[in-house]
Amino acid sequence: MKSVFNIAIQGIKGSFHHSVAENYFNNPQCFEECMTFDVLVDSLINGKTEAAVMALENSIAGSIIPNYALIDVNDLMIVGEYYLDIQHHLMALPNQSIEEIKEVHSHPMALLQCKEFFKSYPEIKLVEAKDTADVAKQISERQLQGIAAIASETASKLYELDILQKSIQTIKHNETRFVIVKRDSDTLESEINKASLKFELDHKRGSLAAILNVLSDCKLNLTKIQSLPKINTPWKYAFFIDVTFDVYSDFDKAKSIVNIMAENFKILGEYKNAKS
Amino acid sequence: MKSVFNIAIQGIKGSFHHSVAENYFNNPQCFEECMTFDVLVDSLINGKTEAAVMALENSIAGSIIPNYALIDVNDLMIVGEYYLDIQHHLMALPNQSIEEIKEVHSHPMALLQCKEFFKSYPEIKLVEAKDTADVAKQISERQLQGIAAIASETASKLYELDILQKSIQTIKHNETRFVIVKRDSDTLESEINKASLKFELDHKRGSLAAILNVLSDCKLNLTKIQSLPKINTPWKYAFFIDVTFDVYSDFDKAKSIVNIMAENFKILGEYKNAKS
Repeated sequence: MKSVFNIAIQGIKGSFHHSVAENYFNNPQCFEECMTFDVLVDSLINGKTEAAVMALENSIAGSIIPNYALIDVNDLMIVGEYYLDIQHHLMALPNQSIEEIKEVHSHPMALLQCKEFFKSYPEIKLVEAKDTADVAKQISERQLQGIAAIASETASKLYELDILQKSIQTIKHNETRFVIVKRDSDTLESEINKASLKFELDHKRGSLAAILNVLSDCKLNLTKIQSLPKINTPWKYAFFIDVTFDVYSDFDKAKSIVNIMAENFKILGEYKNAKS
Repeated sequence: MKSVFNIAIQGIKGSFHHSVAENYFNNPQCFEECMTFDVLVDSLINGKTEAAVMALENSIAGSIIPNYALIDVNDLMIVGEYYLDIQHHLMALPNQSIEEIKEVHSHPMALLQCKEFFKSYPEIKLVEAKDTADVAKQISERQLQGIAAIASETASKLYELDILQKSIQTIKHNETRFVIVKRDSDTLESEINKASLKFELDHKRGSLAAILNVLSDCKLNLTKIQSLPKINTPWKYAFFIDVTFDVYSDFDKAKSIVNIMAENFKILGEYKNAKS
């Protein structure tokens, strides 16, 4: 049971970040609605909030690298993770049919993920908006007829919109991984069985294979790997890696070896695997 | 010297894709302006164009996974690559100062990359648009005063706009990797020293390390690696890997071994390394 405190979410209430925060934390909380990830991170750094929820990767678009950078640059710690199956629903004010909808406003990513559905409705104009839930809120507050939103079920309930069509996204299973971020780690060592690491390597044949061999020898499983060329430093690569393990001492051993083998080794977080 | 044919570019003339096409191909060509990557790929598949230019990754945002998917799903072949240092310039109709600019219209990614600059100009409204070069074109054609675009130097020349401020992006060095894609491979074996691969592995400890050991033993250098969880298949991962090599037979040997060790092994392209 976690105590009540301020949690930063990206977007407004009814957003997918809001759903994650409600599911991850047990009790009703105070939510700080942040329109960008920068504002969200700022609220955490300046102590306005105690935790922040950030989307980090999804099964369609891969890693959200700028969010990795925000965690890294600001020395924040990942303290938990949550997987959400993103379902996009088409919603509008009650008593309208899809044929009466002239425009759909939503976030570019949501429009992209639903583009197959709208091929059957070429007369509907797709308009880019900042936030999926905010469109739902605006439709409700300003009683906008003929305009639909693509948003979550929570948003439809919160803003009293009717769902015209459920799950209109092209790929029906779209799992997004969110992380819970704090200024400092507070996870109990006995609960830790996953970690996010970052390190740098020179462009030398076999250098990554050598590190992965160490991780494997220490009984660590790799669940994610991503290379990123270092800006302004040709032939140098940064790697973001997630590992899972059964015993913390195995991870501890791997840390001390990788710390010697790689440059700028850093732990972005040690936390409980949400899939174990 | 390559012969003249139709090349699909994302965006209109003056876009970064247009610059890449002009630099990669020697002679003036016919360009097919495509507003989305889907339209671009369609033009290639249905034979309207002979080659397409696609952004694939950049040093800030990482891989553009949906473009990898487009190449993969449509069985297209990467036949070349080109690195462009993306510089964003602020431009408007002649004889205006920055203080006279009320709105800046640009692609969300360009706005994001320049947000630090605009913190000094809080009175300027940032408006999301579909295409950076198209905004420049609209300002020129409709003689829009008080509106600025964020676009390339090529766009400023093409649409006769004055550059109010050069290189306004936060990170000054933003290298983007573009690939040239065709329906079939046409690169001479003697020119090939880089390849893009895709394969799948079970979530088993050491499985990726084993593959990387093979690549290293075959004298291949890794220049990129990215894991992606397989949609609808828990505990199975797809990997996108780029390798460079000196001798084609080394790569040939690695191919035959990885083909046995990994599932669904596929070559996305064999081409000339633009950085060798």
